[in-house]
Amino acid sequence: MQVVSVALAERSYPIHIGSNLLGDARLYAPHVKGGRVAVVSNEVVAPLYLEHVQQALAQAGAQSVPVLVDDGEQAKSWQMLDRVIDALLAARLGRDSLIVALGGGVVGDLAGFAAAVYQRGVPFIQVPTTLLAQVDSSVGGKTAINHARGKNMVGAFHQPLAVIADVATLDTLPERELRAGIAEVIKHGFILDLPFVAWLEENIGKLIARDRAALEYAVRRSCELKARIVADDEREAGRRAVLNFGHTFGHAIEAGAGYGEWLHGEAVAAGMVMAAELSTRAGTLRREDAERVKGLIGRAGLPVRGPKLTIERYLELMQVDKKAAGGGIRFVLLDGLGHATLRGGLDDRLVRESIAAAAQ
Amino acid sequence: MQVVSVALAERSYPIHIGSNLLGDARLYAPHVKGGRVAVVSNEVVAPLYLEHVQQALAQAGAQSVPVLVDDGEQAKSWQMLDRVIDALLAARLGRDSLIVALGGGVVGDLAGFAAAVYQRGVPFIQVPTTLLAQVDSSVGGKTAINHARGKNMVGAFHQPLAVIADVATLDTLPERELRAGIAEVIKHGFILDLPFVAWLEENIGKLIARDRAALEYAVRRSCELKARIVADDEREAGRRAVLNFGHTFGHAIEAGAGYGEWLHGEAVAAGMVMAAELSTRAGTLRREDAERVKGLIGRAGLPVRGPKLTIERYLELMQVDKKAAGGGIRFVLLDGLGHATLRGGLDDRLVRESIAAAAQ
Repeated sequence: MQVVSVALAERSYPIHIGSNLLGDARLYAPHVKGGRVAVVSNEVVAPLYLEHVQQALAQAGAQSVPVLVDDGEQAKSWQMLDRVIDALLAARLGRDSLIVALGGGVVGDLAGFAAAVYQRGVPFIQVPTTLLAQVDSSVGGKTAINHARGKNMVGAFHQPLAVIADVATLDTLPERELRAGIAEVIKHGFILDLPFVAWLEENIGKLIARDRAALEYAVRRSCELKARIVADDEREAGRRAVLNFGHTFGHAIEAGAGYGEWLHGEAVAAGMVMAAELSTRAGTLRREDAERVKGLIGRAGLPVRGPKLTIERYLELMQVDKKAAGGGIRFVLLDGLGHATLRGGLDDRLVRESIAAAAQ
Repeated sequence: MQVVSVALAERSYPIHIGSNLLGDARLYAPHVKGGRVAVVSNEVVAPLYLEHVQQALAQAGAQSVPVLVDDGEQAKSWQMLDRVIDALLAARLGRDSLIVALGGGVVGDLAGFAAAVYQRGVPFIQVPTTLLAQVDSSVGGKTAINHARGKNMVGAFHQPLAVIADVATLDTLPERELRAGIAEVIKHGFILDLPFVAWLEENIGKLIARDRAALEYAVRRSCELKARIVADDEREAGRRAVLNFGHTFGHAIEAGAGYGEWLHGEAVAAGMVMAAELSTRAGTLRREDAERVKGLIGRAGLPVRGPKLTIERYLELMQVDKKAAGGGIRFVLLDGLGHATLRGGLDDRLVRESIAAAAQ
């Protein structure tokens, strides 16, 4: 087992990375205080792992109640949030209770947000069971639900007490979701770590073949890179925004295709190709490096083109993105491969051209 | 104008107290950054003060959009929260926007919670227009909405950038609401400041007659007392719970009577009589001091008895109170007049007797 620390003063927490961790009572024991725990999961993940987690919690001395939510992005809704809150109240969980989020990014975002607002905040632990959640959504404390007008528009920064990233759970992950997770792994290389990009170019086949050692390394390196950024800028006042590389386009792709049609990682993948295009057109990235971006994404079996929407529709969807500052849009550009920078006030024409170059 | 500071490190903020403050552009100017502001108010308060506030914001350089919600406690709902969020998104307010909560405790709780979760948190200013909101709900950063299973069950700690407590707005406050606000003023004396109790016994008539100087003093002293507690224990991990004196019973009274039938302050008033009874029976308060509690509440024209419910119903409603720890209930008792203490594990019989002694 390896441990990556997210350094956030009194909100610091460990990410445990390894195989067969989610049934290990010792990882839960320090956090079980009042003795009451709710395990939030969904109908796909629960049959696989819920029993192991509840057994481990029982060994750690905690009674737990399961709370099941629907599968898929549409579960990040007011309705499902209310279902979780209602179940916590029905089980009479007090402010000293613990919530365990067992599942992918959707479960983590929803259960984490429920923990953030239930009785004005209760502690929670993330047990991410998808690659995407292990490398991205479980690191940094972002929680949210969606709104008809935009993704992640209602949420909170709420740090977990611990993250238990069990790579053995990736064995049961559908291949499409594995690839979607690799999109975020690759992203961390593009924006922060050129040697990691080179490692990925060499090992992308092993990741897709679910080589255990390669996966552990990729998860660890991704978490380290993300943790460093989050520690510097917990509430995304500045630097943290570079983690949104590919996301301004990606959110538009997800919304435009209809939530749930494209996986988040797939949308980010095509979004990164657009953002690399934009970087090249804005003069911060060499054409050959933009080709490396596109090449690695393609070799991971991820989409290098966005869905067929009019450019006007893309732009319309991008305006309501939550990173919009004062009505304008700031983009995360690559400033050379392995470095990212934030840029506002870009010429509209460059944005349109970049979309056109990488949309179907 | 007087200023009370709430000391919370980087989340510290001033409470401005005085007459005719809400139209003063200088109080808003330091907080208007991105230039976009939403003023959340309701249909009762908006006709009286919205224009003044929007003019002051315009003078401070900010465009503002009004967002109106329903009047009354039932506005603290998922539905109304969604209405506010939807209006903010429709107006394309970004993360650098400001929310101004103009109204009583309901508007403050709802708008404050909307600010806490909109795009994972935007800043807000409280402009409380009821006595209750000026002395209580606008100090300390508690925001929340209600759930069918209990009051304030979904919320956040989200500190405002500033509070503008304009006592001139109390001129238009219905008398019943004025008295309900006095309940929380009195509470601060009972739990923290014996000399303030004596001042209130002498000046209760002036407060009810809306003597401006008496009101300013009462608001200031209440805010000072509450601010000191909040500064010590922002997230209610311990000491802050004493501010809930009368509230365990009070929440049961509000829920049992049907939300909106009893004003919050009225429920707390009768709840404080029950809590004082309980303190006497638990041996921490002299009978004559419990009579002073009841006497002052009565002289303020506030209810000294709870509604006619069975004792079983009272107990049932109290179990889901959010201060319940590990399934049990901790009570705030008076440990002499002017001091409060937290006590768990009280004999059920004492609780029943105290309810019986002060219910209709």
